[in-house]
Amino acid sequence: MKKIAFYGKGGIGKSTTAANVSAALSTAGHKVCQIGCDPKNDSTRLLLGHICKNTVLDMVRIKDEINLEDIVHYGFNGIKCVEAGGPEPGVGCAGRGIIVALEKLQELDAAADEDIILYDVLGDVVCGGFAVPIREGYATDIYIVSSGELMSLYAANNIAKGIRRFAGRGEVKLAGIIGNGRNVPNEENLLRTFAEKINTRIVAFIPRDKIVNLAEINRKTVIEWDPTSKQAQVYAALATEIFQNTQLSIPKPLSFEELEDLIGFFGIDN
Amino acid sequence: MKKIAFYGKGGIGKSTTAANVSAALSTAGHKVCQIGCDPKNDSTRLLLGHICKNTVLDMVRIKDEINLEDIVHYGFNGIKCVEAGGPEPGVGCAGRGIIVALEKLQELDAAADEDIILYDVLGDVVCGGFAVPIREGYATDIYIVSSGELMSLYAANNIAKGIRRFAGRGEVKLAGIIGNGRNVPNEENLLRTFAEKINTRIVAFIPRDKIVNLAEINRKTVIEWDPTSKQAQVYAALATEIFQNTQLSIPKPLSFEELEDLIGFFGIDN
Repeated sequence: MKKIAFYGKGGIGKSTTAANVSAALSTAGHKVCQIGCDPKNDSTRLLLGHICKNTVLDMVRIKDEINLEDIVHYGFNGIKCVEAGGPEPGVGCAGRGIIVALEKLQELDAAADEDIILYDVLGDVVCGGFAVPIREGYATDIYIVSSGELMSLYAANNIAKGIRRFAGRGEVKLAGIIGNGRNVPNEENLLRTFAEKINTRIVAFIPRDKIVNLAEINRKTVIEWDPTSKQAQVYAALATEIFQNTQLSIPKPLSFEELEDLIGFFGIDN
Repeated sequence: MKKIAFYGKGGIGKSTTAANVSAALSTAGHKVCQIGCDPKNDSTRLLLGHICKNTVLDMVRIKDEINLEDIVHYGFNGIKCVEAGGPEPGVGCAGRGIIVALEKLQELDAAADEDIILYDVLGDVVCGGFAVPIREGYATDIYIVSSGELMSLYAANNIAKGIRRFAGRGEVKLAGIIGNGRNVPNEENLLRTFAEKINTRIVAFIPRDKIVNLAEINRKTVIEWDPTSKQAQVYAALATEIFQNTQLSIPKPLSFEELEDLIGFFGIDN
């Protein structure tokens, strides 16, 4: 089983990309399970057509014994969808919530018969809790979703630092960067150079396209909304690339000065 | 002294708005201190012209005795800038980092002679640590930055839940919503209705304008980049509104169903 995780700055399009990749993998005949690790439960929304209400933590809170059917929901094309859930706003620890949820999922063997399991993780790796899918080996192939914007690359570089920390002692590796276009000048070149410098590669560059918003407004992935569209083909190619990818690496994060120089060179901060 | 905090979904424009409000308040003659509570240190970037390197946590880690001058940096128009900092990526607790940093700032009386102190806090209120400015009374007037996008409103509603939890026992109140336009259909109406329903109001609606990106690329606020521009006037009006605002309330968050109905009614999810 392929165990992958998506990380990246908040607001960068991780959940949209994750849902489209899952939909494309499923359409290509693979059995997929997508696990959202964000207290906002937004990861599986485009697959389910609505926000997931029964999260693992919701169930852990209200039931002594929980079963797979309490927490596994079925979305587009039969994709298994699970949301870890989170603490009540303002109290508790979101990272701790992810730990509890992933332990419970493992105990129940939720994704036992899948070909691929995809973790979609909240925001940057800001603290130990959010690094759990990396640290505990739940995921082995880590993808970073990033645009060419400074703060997005800054977060990507930090995530690479987090992966490097744990790559030495286990199976976890950086599998590549998924470029998500924000119409920044020289964006694709900048992302390719950044990827090379941190010892990885761009597995796909997703251009900005209005169809993504249009599909989202209709609570669907592009794959479901318009499978013949150009953007659907982009996601399909990314899904194939991810499924076949064996080029994993231990990242070499940049110093902050190197990162700023790189961005300056490509004209973003001039 | 006015003690305010900005919260909102990751990627929604909190730091940009915070820096522009601080710059506008300063230009209007007020003494301002902006404190970034995000491990990415991005809050004060547009005021300083670069990413803040010496954060409170950096200094706490390397020095036994730290002084104000170690952690206070001066940006545009003499604005005091402080970044709390964060843990090493993948280990430690970002919320705990904010607690340590804010305690140290209070101990050093970093903002003693300011007219206004503005906390800019990472992402959603996902866990107790990020609620510290609310929970410990560092900030009393809480603003939520939101677009009309579903996930942004979902985060805003969660933040309102967090504020409600602590509003009963202390001075902290919801001071309003700052609408940050994303060109969603009926966005301003949707935001106004959402605000009314949760017992607050829109203090400003900031339209999307390319000048914000242009100024950012040049590492400046719009206030500094082009003080005569229309967008600079929008931020100036927001700053005045914030400084004079006495309409604070205890929020009444919506249920998730009410939130989805509202968004459906305004046509976003049709």
